[in-house]
Amino acid sequence: MDRNYNLALIGFGNVNRTLADIIHRDGAALEKELGFSLTITAITDLRYGSVVNPRGVDLDRALACGEGDTFANLDGGQETCNNQDVICSDIADIIVEATFTNPDDGEPGLSHVRWGLESGKSVCTTNKGPAAFAAHELAELANKNAVRFECEGAVMSGTPVIRLAHGPLKGVGIQGFSGILNGTSNYVLTRMESGLTQQEAIVEAQELGYAEADPTADIGGSDVRLKVTLLANELWGTQLRAQDVPTHGITAITEEEIKEAEANGTHWKLIGQAHRGDQGQVIASVGPQRLETRHPLSGISGATNAVMFDTLYLGPVTISGPGAGREETAYALISDIVAIDHFYQTQER
Amino acid sequence: MDRNYNLALIGFGNVNRTLADIIHRDGAALEKELGFSLTITAITDLRYGSVVNPRGVDLDRALACGEGDTFANLDGGQETCNNQDVICSDIADIIVEATFTNPDDGEPGLSHVRWGLESGKSVCTTNKGPAAFAAHELAELANKNAVRFECEGAVMSGTPVIRLAHGPLKGVGIQGFSGILNGTSNYVLTRMESGLTQQEAIVEAQELGYAEADPTADIGGSDVRLKVTLLANELWGTQLRAQDVPTHGITAITEEEIKEAEANGTHWKLIGQAHRGDQGQVIASVGPQRLETRHPLSGISGATNAVMFDTLYLGPVTISGPGAGREETAYALISDIVAIDHFYQTQER
Repeated sequence: MDRNYNLALIGFGNVNRTLADIIHRDGAALEKELGFSLTITAITDLRYGSVVNPRGVDLDRALACGEGDTFANLDGGQETCNNQDVICSDIADIIVEATFTNPDDGEPGLSHVRWGLESGKSVCTTNKGPAAFAAHELAELANKNAVRFECEGAVMSGTPVIRLAHGPLKGVGIQGFSGILNGTSNYVLTRMESGLTQQEAIVEAQELGYAEADPTADIGGSDVRLKVTLLANELWGTQLRAQDVPTHGITAITEEEIKEAEANGTHWKLIGQAHRGDQGQVIASVGPQRLETRHPLSGISGATNAVMFDTLYLGPVTISGPGAGREETAYALISDIVAIDHFYQTQER
Repeated sequence: MDRNYNLALIGFGNVNRTLADIIHRDGAALEKELGFSLTITAITDLRYGSVVNPRGVDLDRALACGEGDTFANLDGGQETCNNQDVICSDIADIIVEATFTNPDDGEPGLSHVRWGLESGKSVCTTNKGPAAFAAHELAELANKNAVRFECEGAVMSGTPVIRLAHGPLKGVGIQGFSGILNGTSNYVLTRMESGLTQQEAIVEAQELGYAEADPTADIGGSDVRLKVTLLANELWGTQLRAQDVPTHGITAITEEEIKEAEANGTHWKLIGQAHRGDQGQVIASVGPQRLETRHPLSGISGATNAVMFDTLYLGPVTISGPGAGREETAYALISDIVAIDHFYQTQER
């Protein structure tokens, strides 16, 4: 087993840092499990600058970088962050993109992905932006350059949704899907069922690290909207735009409504859904729904996420698992790299 | 798209009959979706005899065969059923095995699968027997002959479990699993929660076609035991034997216990489970368990089945969907054929 991929990590926040830590700590075990090895040859980050080293970045020292530190003291390091140069150079085989998502235009991740694919590298990302705004363009760009674009982690972190649909469910006739795609809002609804007010539940979610300091995107539904857009476009190759998905959050759900629903054996859930219309168009929406106890998504509680596929041959098939978390999302990147390796292996034969 | 596979259907009961009907009815749409065509060149069945036709069996007439009819009047047909001759001949590329399972030794399916693999054909089956009794041997036999053995439908009919584990969840570190793997017993438990006695619920399940005339294997747990054995051996390449899995059914669960559990916000479920011990050994069991409402399997009701994987990187990941049904199980065979095609395509490059 002599196969190795050189990785350039773009962004060194929680997710890519955890990936680096897994490769540093468990590299040998991972190589045994996957059948190939991984070397991190570049890292860039707005805070720390960049480091490029064809023999492999010194991960001990990179991982030790904290607030106020830079990569300047590392072998091959410098204080400035030059994403485009690193992505377009020959330092890596695979670009691992994990920067933040701007919900209005998908940048800067979208440019990072474009640069990678255009310069002949496969790219994986946990970022919702690129596939939500340009799934079709990026798939064509990857195709043209005989590389892959993978973004499994952007939907439910490590819980595989896109890959379940394209792999084991191939040919099953997926007509639509409904999902619980935001852990924070689901946690808040679950805690409101235990008697907390929405505000109390949000504060608790923030204390537990589920919710951002500004929980607007989670509670207001715009995070789910991006995921629904991304998933629909990945499933069907369509060009749905986020701004065309009618979206309501859970802000308007009162404690009384939660109580009344529970008394009737139902549960309020924030549901993102899409299905194909008669002419192949995509009809999508995001909003709170009251689900009967027997509904497959009704029992999905706390920070767990789930997607129920409506299929022609099987009826409903549901997958549930974590929807967030550092290690879970880092694992999604590993699963993307496995898919990229599989692509290269089948291409080369 | 000129790729075609010739299929020999062994057994012409509900499942293979439905597969033949799908190919007959939707062949063109299926070919478009899958990228290859399917031709049924042989069918054998204990009741109807056998029919072999290199240009394709006349499916109109084969599907019209009912009680008391035989294949003798079809082009290439005869009254006797010669499974071994058909399987070992060159009439087909893929053997599609869907006979009954003898829970004591896995026959006759096990021999059918062996003959197919030994004579250089890929084999798919919905039969629990072969993989429950000889997963390891059959994997080696397939490997040696550069063909595939697939049995996704034997666990949860069309709902993918084995393929989810080996594909999208590769590298996630599956430490164990628990599942609701029998639709009849789960339906009975669900209906007992609505106030029926166990006997009433069994009769209802029989009337709906879920339960066999003799429901012993469903209610007594031996069906689940075979599935747990099969799944463990497929996941980990182990050689667990069904007789080593301690098994209890739901017969002893009383209406009072069901009521008491519900009053405490819990649900009785028949759980099949296995995990790996410290030395890599498999520890498996089948029996009723009282699950808290928040447990991922607690809300799986009626004839739905589910498997929860315990994973190292993601924690619990659960898939649920139909666990039985003609069309659902026939779809499992199509998904097996897709996997076989993928294998050949990657081999040939």
